[in-house]
Amino acid sequence: MDYKITETKSRITEDNDRCAEEVRRRLKETGTVLINLMGSPGAGKTTFLIRTLQALKDRYRIGVMEADVDSDVDAAAVSELGVRVIQLHTGGSCHMDADMTMRGLTEMGYDDLDLIVLENVGNLVCPAEFDVGANIRVMILSVPEGDDKPLKYPLMFQVSDCMIINKIDVLPVFDFSVEEARKRARNLNPNLTVIPLSAGNGEGFDEWIRWLTERMEAYEGH
Amino acid sequence: MDYKITETKSRITEDNDRCAEEVRRRLKETGTVLINLMGSPGAGKTTFLIRTLQALKDRYRIGVMEADVDSDVDAAAVSELGVRVIQLHTGGSCHMDADMTMRGLTEMGYDDLDLIVLENVGNLVCPAEFDVGANIRVMILSVPEGDDKPLKYPLMFQVSDCMIINKIDVLPVFDFSVEEARKRARNLNPNLTVIPLSAGNGEGFDEWIRWLTERMEAYEGH
Repeated sequence: MDYKITETKSRITEDNDRCAEEVRRRLKETGTVLINLMGSPGAGKTTFLIRTLQALKDRYRIGVMEADVDSDVDAAAVSELGVRVIQLHTGGSCHMDADMTMRGLTEMGYDDLDLIVLENVGNLVCPAEFDVGANIRVMILSVPEGDDKPLKYPLMFQVSDCMIINKIDVLPVFDFSVEEARKRARNLNPNLTVIPLSAGNGEGFDEWIRWLTERMEAYEGH
Repeated sequence: MDYKITETKSRITEDNDRCAEEVRRRLKETGTVLINLMGSPGAGKTTFLIRTLQALKDRYRIGVMEADVDSDVDAAAVSELGVRVIQLHTGGSCHMDADMTMRGLTEMGYDDLDLIVLENVGNLVCPAEFDVGANIRVMILSVPEGDDKPLKYPLMFQVSDCMIINKIDVLPVFDFSVEEARKRARNLNPNLTVIPLSAGNGEGFDEWIRWLTERMEAYEGH
């Protein structure tokens, strides 16, 4: 049984795509890179973000937009690092869209920043459907979630540039194959970069920092 | 910054609520209980469901509706138990609504069943917003997701009757307090039943089966 996508939905998506292009155009003017960081609740997005900020905050001027249905838990944790951070409450909505991103950018101020990370609402489905105007889309799949997730939530893997396999420190206690996860994700998206790491203990993190830094340099040189 | 809920959304929700009441009315006529099983991707919904079926399939006539954005992975696993199962593809949608549930019930047939379990799309946000017409709402929070999730995704905890804390077998390797999770969830919903267990090894499962059986008997006697 298939659920029919309504016309309303198509129209919303078209409007969103136009707005996302406008976000990208404005950020290009100021040379600012926007990362859309996505993943399930509990995949480790905030821990991953904090370690990334610790590694790069002396090298780049970084801002963070924390999107949550409710609560300021993550923004409070991030602000302790002395990085500019804004909390966005989606008011029940399960994802960020381009208009909400634009309003967040305007409120935070972005023209003096090199890099902005948007931590999206924890959700492996809806955020994949909405282009927020990001230059880099990063998704996190954590080991306890299982290596079958690309089969069940394909769109997220298709729209991402980089897939972080997080919590590899607990591989011994879960039935999870890094190779199977990589293969299934790359079947959906042959261009996907896959980086296994542990945001908790830092194992494998250098590869992610190297990959991101290369992307930042490519953007600047463009 | 708050995102404004649009009028369109309110109208959709009202239509859905009417349809959900119709689902409940029809199921009451045939004495069938419907469970809406919700939780993040990888929380262990399918493993939990399969163990529940193993425990109860000789006692009740049970049907399963597997909702997925895409793929038939879960339906294939469940059908091996000899239980009636139908796969619902939401066509990209991040949740089941009452109309989709009604269509699933009609397609599967339900008048000879005592119990139907709807395994919702893996998502801690959107399924909480849509009443599908269930009599019992069960949500799974797994240990690796973290005990702070009630703070970040409050609605799911508010609308559920029972919260399963799954994967307690990996408590030693995660920083997760069952007591904190319970306290935070009950702050949102004082009537919530909280049952810690491991769907993987069966620890604590008896309490869940007892709770469900009592609910079934209460429904029948009503």
